[in-house]
Formats: sequence, C-alpha cells, structure tokens
Amino acid sequence: MPFDFQMDDLPRVIRAGRYPLADRNFSVSYLNSGTNALHIYDYHGKIRLSGNQYAIAPGTISITPTGTDARYDLEKPGFHYCTHFKFPAKSAKSGKELSLPLCIELGEARSAAESKFMNLVWWIQQAEASPEADHAASLVLQEFLIWLYWINKSRSENFGRKARTAVVSAAMEIDRCLSKEISIPEISRTAGLSQNYLALLFRRQYGITMNRYLIIRRIEYAKHLLECTALPVKEIGTRVGLPDPQHFNKLFRRIAGKSPSQFRNKI
Amino acid sequence: MPFDFQMDDLPRVIRAGRYPLADRNFSVSYLNSGTNALHIYDYHGKIRLSGNQYAIAPGTISITPTGTDARYDLEKPGFHYCTHFKFPAKSAKSGKELSLPLCIELGEARSAAESKFMNLVWWIQQAEASPEADHAASLVLQEFLIWLYWINKSRSENFGRKARTAVVSAAMEIDRCLSKEISIPEISRTAGLSQNYLALLFRRQYGITMNRYLIIRRIEYAKHLLECTALPVKEIGTRVGLPDPQHFNKLFRRIAGKSPSQFRNKI
Repeated sequence: MPFDFQMDDLPRVIRAGRYPLADRNFSVSYLNSGTNALHIYDYHGKIRLSGNQYAIAPGTISITPTGTDARYDLEKPGFHYCTHFKFPAKSAKSGKELSLPLCIELGEARSAAESKFMNLVWWIQQAEASPEADHAASLVLQEFLIWLYWINKSRSENFGRKARTAVVSAAMEIDRCLSKEISIPEISRTAGLSQNYLALLFRRQYGITMNRYLIIRRIEYAKHLLECTALPVKEIGTRVGLPDPQHFNKLFRRIAGKSPSQFRNKI
Repeated sequence: MPFDFQMDDLPRVIRAGRYPLADRNFSVSYLNSGTNALHIYDYHGKIRLSGNQYAIAPGTISITPTGTDARYDLEKPGFHYCTHFKFPAKSAKSGKELSLPLCIELGEARSAAESKFMNLVWWIQQAEASPEADHAASLVLQEFLIWLYWINKSRSENFGRKARTAVVSAAMEIDRCLSKEISIPEISRTAGLSQNYLALLFRRQYGITMNRYLIIRRIEYAKHLLECTALPVKEIGTRVGLPDPQHFNKLFRRIAGKSPSQFRNKI
C-alpha cells in the first residue's frame, strides 16, 4: 500500500520534533486516526505497518498514513524525527497525485533529509512566537514530500547518489561558465567522469543532452539580459558565451522561436 | 520603498542560477518589467535601486521589485545568485502581507541563505526532467522569502545571531529531553549561558517562559501518545517526563483544557 498525496495540497503540520522511542516486541500500537506521520529513524529495529513488516535502521524513513496501525520492536531505545500532518479535507486543485512507498532507505540522502527536517522543526519551534511560522512549516514539509518522491523515483530508475551528484555538479559548472565559450569535454573533466559516461547519466536525468542544456541555459541568461537591460544584442551574445552574432541569433531563434530583437520588443 | 508580498501567494520561479557580473560605473541599467529579482552577492560594490544607493558585499541580499531600475558599480567582476519570480496576477487569499527592505546584510545567516538558494537552483535544474520541480521551486522560494522576513524582523528587534542560536539550541535540548525530568537550570548549562540571560532571550523570542515552553512540549507529546496509542495515562505521564499522575493531570488540564482521559475519548 503506497502513500498517495496531491502535489498541490498544502499539508498542515500538527507537530514536528525529535522524540525518544523505546518500544519492544511490537507491544505498543500507534494509530493516527486523524493525521499522517512521517519518521526518520536513528535506531535499528523493525516496524509493522498495516500488516507489513519492515526493517528500520539509521536513515530509514517511514510514513504512517491516517488510520494505519504502527508497531515497533527496537533493538535498543533511540530517537527519531517525527512529524504529524494533515491534508485539507477538500483537495484544492486538480494537482498531480504523487505516490510514495511507506518505507524508504535514504542512504546517502540521509543528511540532506535530516537538514530539511531540522528546518521543519525549527519553524515549528518558532510557531509560538511568529504567525508566519506555521505557513513556512507547511511549505517546508510539502517540498520535503516532493523531494522524497524525487529521491525514490531516481532510486527506482537505478540512478545512484554518486551519479546524481556528478550530474548536478556538471549542471552547476555549466551555470558557472555560461559567459565563457566552455565546451562539454572541459565540463566532463571537472566532473571527474569520462565524457561518454557523464553524457549518458546527464541524458538519463535531464532527458536532454548536455550540449542542449548548455544552450538552453545560455539562451535563458540572454533572455534575462534582453528583458532587463538595454545592452546591445551583440554584447549580450558575448556575455552568454556566444560572441559570434550569427551563431547567437541562430541558437536563440531555435530555442526561443524568435530573434533576440523580436524577443526584446515582445513581437 | 520596501518590497511587499502576500505570505500565501505562491511565487512562480522564472529562473534561478549563479551568474557572473562585471558592470562598472552604473553603466548598465537592469529593469525587470515583469518579474521581481532577488540576488545574493559574492562581491563588493554598489547598487542603485530606484534612486537609493546601497553598498554591497559578500553576503548582501537585494530585491529588485517589478519595474524598478537597478544599476551596479562593482569593484571587480564576481558572481551572484539570482532568481527572477512572479506572483500571481490576482492575489489568491486574504493572506498576511509581509514587508522586506530592498537590501539586507545576511551576516552570519549567509550560509543558511546560500544553502536555501542552492536548493532552489537545484530544483530549477531538475525542471527539464521532472514536472514536480517547478512547484517545489515555488515552495522553496516562498519559504525563503518568509525566512528573510523573519531574519530581518529578529535583526530589527536587536536579536543577534548568537542569541538566536542559543535559544534554538535550548528549544532543541528541551525536545530531546522531553521524556526526562529535566529542569531549566540543566538546560541553561547545556546552552552555555547564564540562566537569567537565556531566560530573557527565550522570552523575547518565544513570548513565553522556558518553563511554559517545556510544559507545552510535554503536553504536545502526551497528546500524541494519547491519540495514537493505547498506553495507560499513567505510563504516558512517565514517558513525557511527568511521572506523578496528579501533577501530569493538573498540567494537562491547564494546557489542553480537559483531562488526559477526556482528551483521549474526545469529550
């Protein structure tokens, strides 16, 4: 049984914190009748969720949907991060439905998850003092759930953390070098992977080639300069790493569907 | 002129990235006719925003509202984080309006800001590959803006980073020790501040005393156990650090307005 939620529904955070747990032998039953629970564990043990048993270890995350019985058998007492949340009774929008398994091994994504969770706890702790904090906590939790969906999806696509890191750092490097005439081989060297392998990983994650991504980002940056400055088109080409005006024009047309001047004049 | 926004309005992120800038002598004018811009600077220089001049340095953040002219004079070329975003044409809800100055020195909050921003850039980079990414980016940016509001408010209340850190770590320590009979003096020792000074800072930030906060968190945790488990009330008292049943009952009534059993039976 997966946990399904509407991407656009803003969850209300009922509580978030770091709590101790010491249950042995599945002796205590936790039943959230009105809320969903999400835990990140620090300890080893087992959990039974609606009939299924999962092993838990530091870095395991579990979701207990509303009305689901959860029982624990811990090897020894420990702590977990815990949040309880509700979705609005009426789904607001015709948003996309996302689906998560009830148990996910975070693996190397654990520290990122914990830092997102700490941010959630931080906002909840401010809630006594500032009325904006509850809303911010909702936003943080919603992003966290979408991120979990993304992590899990990438995982099931057999896409390891190391590969993700390499692809993200290649994308960052592309951004960093937008104004230069950088080439893809140079970026591959920075990422420390063979050009072919990085190209494959990149295509798999972004659905486009690195070269196309580089062009899209250059044209994005050019659009920004066209919109926001009075710089001559030629100068803008140079600033986005495409100093040859003809080449710049051609690429811009291909991506944006019109020439730089037409884009600027909103034709 | 401040930057005003509705807390509930979800911004649409048009672009986010890390871009180079090299403008000298206020020679280039940046005018965002349709979007708001937000920058975090890595370099030293000056910015003119709608008639006002601000000094910028690594860790300065600036906001250029729609229709505002921005000009730069950099000491030498550098990078900035940049995002452009729009709010919905029609404000959706009767949300609270928050106000930010156009220029904020992040100070020691800089690394937190950059890590939030990197998260934003990361989502925007995924946008080619996953349709959820745009929505997640909107959530991250909205939380970022509320966080900036909070940072700026705390700053203007003359509430330093060190004090904030001490108060937050005291609140974390309270959470960590909920199940023990911990006392406030012990927590003060953990925070490394004198009890009186910490108490003052805590009250200033949370609007309540540390002791009341500790009780509220204990009762929160007790509510969770009452709702989600069949543990006896006495056992729950022990688990939330209030092993004396009478004392537990009294405190629970004071905070929750009814007894633990009434709360459990939803009377």
